[in-house]
Amino acid sequence: MAGRREWTRETLGAGVRSGDRRALARAITLVENADPLAYDLVRDLYPETGRTFAVGITGPPGVGKSTLISALVRPIRERGLTVGVISVDPSSPFSHGALLGDRIRLADHFLDPGVFIRSMGTRGHLGGLAEATLQALLILDAGGKDIVFLETVGTGQSEVEIIDVADTVLLVLMPGSGDSVQALKAGIMEIPDVIAVNKKEHPAAKTMLNEVRSILALDLESDRRPPIVLTEAVTGEGVSELWDEIAGHRDYLVSNGLLDERRRRNLASEVFAVASARAKAHLERTVANDPELRRLLDEVQRRELDPLTAVRAIMIQVFRIDEDGNGTDPH
Amino acid sequence: MAGRREWTRETLGAGVRSGDRRALARAITLVENADPLAYDLVRDLYPETGRTFAVGITGPPGVGKSTLISALVRPIRERGLTVGVISVDPSSPFSHGALLGDRIRLADHFLDPGVFIRSMGTRGHLGGLAEATLQALLILDAGGKDIVFLETVGTGQSEVEIIDVADTVLLVLMPGSGDSVQALKAGIMEIPDVIAVNKKEHPAAKTMLNEVRSILALDLESDRRPPIVLTEAVTGEGVSELWDEIAGHRDYLVSNGLLDERRRRNLASEVFAVASARAKAHLERTVANDPELRRLLDEVQRRELDPLTAVRAIMIQVFRIDEDGNGTDPH
Repeated sequence: MAGRREWTRETLGAGVRSGDRRALARAITLVENADPLAYDLVRDLYPETGRTFAVGITGPPGVGKSTLISALVRPIRERGLTVGVISVDPSSPFSHGALLGDRIRLADHFLDPGVFIRSMGTRGHLGGLAEATLQALLILDAGGKDIVFLETVGTGQSEVEIIDVADTVLLVLMPGSGDSVQALKAGIMEIPDVIAVNKKEHPAAKTMLNEVRSILALDLESDRRPPIVLTEAVTGEGVSELWDEIAGHRDYLVSNGLLDERRRRNLASEVFAVASARAKAHLERTVANDPELRRLLDEVQRRELDPLTAVRAIMIQVFRIDEDGNGTDPH
Repeated sequence: MAGRREWTRETLGAGVRSGDRRALARAITLVENADPLAYDLVRDLYPETGRTFAVGITGPPGVGKSTLISALVRPIRERGLTVGVISVDPSSPFSHGALLGDRIRLADHFLDPGVFIRSMGTRGHLGGLAEATLQALLILDAGGKDIVFLETVGTGQSEVEIIDVADTVLLVLMPGSGDSVQALKAGIMEIPDVIAVNKKEHPAAKTMLNEVRSILALDLESDRRPPIVLTEAVTGEGVSELWDEIAGHRDYLVSNGLLDERRRRNLASEVFAVASARAKAHLERTVANDPELRRLLDEVQRRELDPLTAVRAIMIQVFRIDEDGNGTDPH
């Protein structure tokens, strides 16, 4: 097998296509580093993608998302399917070597060639997490993984751009997740496709389930109400049922002709998210390197120039667009 | 007094400067509507701003932020200070006529000429909520309000750009805010300047306080640990003490020479946030109106063109910047 320095666009492409673990790992590292080779690679692979079932898993930290993903791997593997996991949750055990207990629980998966687990960081990545996650998903898709889990952290809206690429979104809560329940109730948090209330052994688990159920019952518009499953990720209780509900959502999408529509929408919103992130990065870099623009900020800070006038000047200077959104001639 | 159609840049400016309630209301409506007059007005007023103490109040929905703000108004008014409230929380009672109880509680404040309360929406606003909130704050600042509260909702990072303009950030939690506590613990949520644990009559309030306290104790780096105050907003218990802690944070900033530094940083990050929001709005509008760019998205959706190549084409077309962030000639 090729060593880490010997990968070319061709050998790496072939390695990814064959599902080779080292090729997948290398390709995702290149994505994290925004290496030009990653761009070429995904470009080559893209026409072959779209076969993976992408499952986004979100929820506040500490509810057991990683443990639940580990537990979900079992019923999926029993059905003969292969699995990829991309964690973009900095608080996830997948991202740390610290949690030995979880490591041990995950150990058999790490040895299973049908399972690929990877946590991602994107420090300084131009297109941000949305871009890196999308590219990594496409690599695992081309690598033949039947299911890819995307783990993100969040109790509100900020993780939206990452999770937006998923076919099915699972929200994980636990007893004590009062803030998330309130956020669902207030319409601040988007309604997911499936909900798991984890730590079902907790005395308040059923109360939480009923609370969430009554909130969902208020939504009279949508024709599908998200199923809620009580789970205990550590022991695996309820996990097989949870998988059935996740797979059931995919069946629902397919049989109602909604999967293509959702993927079209997802891809468009990903392209916007990535372009926006790049525009923001470009903006910050340009201002940092341009003494004239930095002087504008100084004037704002001395209350000599109002913030919106500074913004207008920056928009023209950096993006060459004026107040009405028209292009202007470059300086 | 001038009617709503008769305001000019001059009369509106004079009205705002004198703290006239109708002028303030009209000016903020113009901000919401992104009216060019609002831009001119804030530009005129900006050199006179910077006197207000801006207090950001954030926290999950349902913890009682609005009621707490109402309660805080009393000790502030007793000290002879004037107050503005800008709510950008769509789930806030300030934003709805629905919660009659809160309305009644607020009624005396609504009649007090030293108090100005306003909720804001920004549907379709080019620069987003960050821009509108900043402008509204500057108007109340020029209008002579000694204290301005900015109410936002959130349990994570998404409200950051709005709250970033505040001198002091208060996080409101309540018993059951387990997700927020976990988010603080995991470093997902930024440490605020002051914390209120509201609904102190709840049996679990003290447990929550101790939990938060032990998390904050883990932070050995910062030289100031945020005070945590138990409050009962409905009865006003602990509210005067909470105000002392908020004012105390301002004193801390001033006496350590940190206020100017924080405001410099805040203003710079606001300018970036507004410019980014405008860039994103420009991007979406341009793609929507450009058949060629829409065709690119179609190709992505048919898996003929990979997403990043589409992003590159869009960046050049919309912002005239290439992969390396260099400007290109306009088409």
